[in-house]
Amino acid sequence: MENFEFQNTTRIIFGRDQSARIALEAKKWAGRILLVTGKGSVRRSGLLKKTITLLQNEGLDVWNLSGVQSNPLLSKVKEGIELVRENGIQAVVAVGGGSVMDTSKAVAAGAVLTNGDVWDFFEGRQEIKDALPVLTVPTIAASGSEMNGFMVITNEKTGHKLATGSRSTYPKVSILDPCLTFSVPADYTAYGGVDAVCHLLEPYFNAPAPHTPVQDRLAEGLIETIMKSTESCLAVPDDYEARADLMWGASLALCGLTKAGVGEHHFPVHLIEHSISAIHGIPHGAGLAALLPGWMRWRVKTGHPEKIAQMGRRIFKLESSGLPDAGSSRRQELLAMESIATFENWLSRIGCPSRLMDIGIKADSHEAIAQNALQQATIWGMERQYDKKTITRILAYC
Amino acid sequence: MENFEFQNTTRIIFGRDQSARIALEAKKWAGRILLVTGKGSVRRSGLLKKTITLLQNEGLDVWNLSGVQSNPLLSKVKEGIELVRENGIQAVVAVGGGSVMDTSKAVAAGAVLTNGDVWDFFEGRQEIKDALPVLTVPTIAASGSEMNGFMVITNEKTGHKLATGSRSTYPKVSILDPCLTFSVPADYTAYGGVDAVCHLLEPYFNAPAPHTPVQDRLAEGLIETIMKSTESCLAVPDDYEARADLMWGASLALCGLTKAGVGEHHFPVHLIEHSISAIHGIPHGAGLAALLPGWMRWRVKTGHPEKIAQMGRRIFKLESSGLPDAGSSRRQELLAMESIATFENWLSRIGCPSRLMDIGIKADSHEAIAQNALQQATIWGMERQYDKKTITRILAYC
Repeated sequence: MENFEFQNTTRIIFGRDQSARIALEAKKWAGRILLVTGKGSVRRSGLLKKTITLLQNEGLDVWNLSGVQSNPLLSKVKEGIELVRENGIQAVVAVGGGSVMDTSKAVAAGAVLTNGDVWDFFEGRQEIKDALPVLTVPTIAASGSEMNGFMVITNEKTGHKLATGSRSTYPKVSILDPCLTFSVPADYTAYGGVDAVCHLLEPYFNAPAPHTPVQDRLAEGLIETIMKSTESCLAVPDDYEARADLMWGASLALCGLTKAGVGEHHFPVHLIEHSISAIHGIPHGAGLAALLPGWMRWRVKTGHPEKIAQMGRRIFKLESSGLPDAGSSRRQELLAMESIATFENWLSRIGCPSRLMDIGIKADSHEAIAQNALQQATIWGMERQYDKKTITRILAYC
Repeated sequence: MENFEFQNTTRIIFGRDQSARIALEAKKWAGRILLVTGKGSVRRSGLLKKTITLLQNEGLDVWNLSGVQSNPLLSKVKEGIELVRENGIQAVVAVGGGSVMDTSKAVAAGAVLTNGDVWDFFEGRQEIKDALPVLTVPTIAASGSEMNGFMVITNEKTGHKLATGSRSTYPKVSILDPCLTFSVPADYTAYGGVDAVCHLLEPYFNAPAPHTPVQDRLAEGLIETIMKSTESCLAVPDDYEARADLMWGASLALCGLTKAGVGEHHFPVHLIEHSISAIHGIPHGAGLAALLPGWMRWRVKTGHPEKIAQMGRRIFKLESSGLPDAGSSRRQELLAMESIATFENWLSRIGCPSRLMDIGIKADSHEAIAQNALQQATIWGMERQYDKKTITRILAYC
């Protein structure tokens, strides 16, 4: 285990019909609230109107930043910062998915920045040192943004989709109400499951520390539960228990717990996917699904089959009978390849792509994707391990 | 999954030789420090002198409350409160095991109580609403006190060993340095492992919620890792990786994570053990080890074999070939009994008792233990499920 620091200060309120508590929680932090919401479903479902009424009934003044889209845009963040500054807003409440939560965090951090532009945070020119309090009510189980300090924003002028984060942008309170996710469509339910699994798989496979049994077991337990509950949610969309498992599993997947102690690692699949969705407008989870099996095959072929084989044994209960001798690298490789095939079957069962061609991305796009990803890799400080040649090779495996 | 709230604000600094950072961390919170320590080892190892020097080199004024014993006493807590009040002390630093950390929390909460006695918190007459900041440097992996708000104190006048807790008594910072645990003797290393496993097993077996796959998988992963790493620590006491796994596993075991969502549950083994150690002066972990297999047998015989069987299948990889039909209650019972036997073998391998007779407690003591436990059960609000008859019956199984 490597040395680490861990702290997650977000207070979680979890359960059936808990979302109405947002008004009382928001009141503890502020009198003037920016309510951030997405494009359509929050309005159609009546959740927007209900939330505004709840907040106003508690005597809060509410401004609504609406219309946040998937792969959320910097222009919308700036619109929110303007609203906050003009109206002396003191806290940001996000009701929506990862894009809405990420936009809220960026607004909360950008609004208190006095010397510079909010995009400085994403390009690494400034660190976030302070932010308005953020409270979230997620409406989909996916990003885990409700229980961490990260945010991902797309600068539509440069075509860069970049991530940043800080201690100040951990939500103060997140209310996780699985009932709010009953109406998430099948495709986005599946993409959410893939996103959460990917948050676990990247540190699990990439960990430089050779000995991390605590972290491995935690990650494996969450991966298994998220995979199963995603299928159950698709079979019965209003299965409360399945939605609850998926929601809590997705939050824990990126709360920092399974990463703490595994050593410095990167998120290459997220890196490459950000470029794909920035260029091609693909939903994040679909892009991840199209990349994951290929990335795993690349890992096996470049000499790292161990953890993928371990996933096969422990999660998929793959037997090694009929395989070469225990401990041999050939056996590890065969088990790993069977593990990848099992994972692909899951993707197929939940209606997700598993290759780039499934989302219409052909070899002639690889160059542009790799070029964009390289720029982001440089900002993330991973350009040495993930140079353009490596990214192109990974894309070829996908 | 049941509705729940979860928040754990403790900042963890984990790793090799990190304990020296305590002075800089303490300085963030206070200029006048109460350093709480135990009886002998902290002095013999030089850690006490080293810590005082570190704190003083940062310009901090240090008072030492030393000599905290296992099953820590209320009189020592009161001595600490006096020291704090007389000297305007602003923060409490615990360097030691669970007893030292629990004493520190009780001092921190008691020192700011203006109307009443610190024992009021334990008997439920007052709630802890505020406390001085507590920082911990644990020297043994066991109680998990470094990452929660709980404390257990024995009132030597009444013979009651009672627990309380609050949001205010979560340590602000805990520095987990596995190297500090290299010198923990074999018996206490084993008792620590048993304590941590017991913190996981009680909510795991007692959960009223029928469907808790996220919590089950997390608990199973931690139980398995703690069991294995305890054995590795006994084999090679300065095996850093094993000590690290045991230390982080023990902290996570009672950080609230595996309990969140399982519904209201009790800690009957801890309840009964507190009475045993209060009356007989047995080390906490030894008492738990002597009770656990009997408590499990009692659960099987009173119709709750499922989770114990699940532990057998998932952690001990017990096969069910040769057993009656899947799903039959007889099969569950047989698997559960085999699971208990496997657990007993582990206790025996790590040199722990597994029956009350192993720690010299005979049937003629059961009455007094049950009487004491019942009083505590009443304070914990579990006297209906754990009346004297039930406690006596559990003791008979042990």
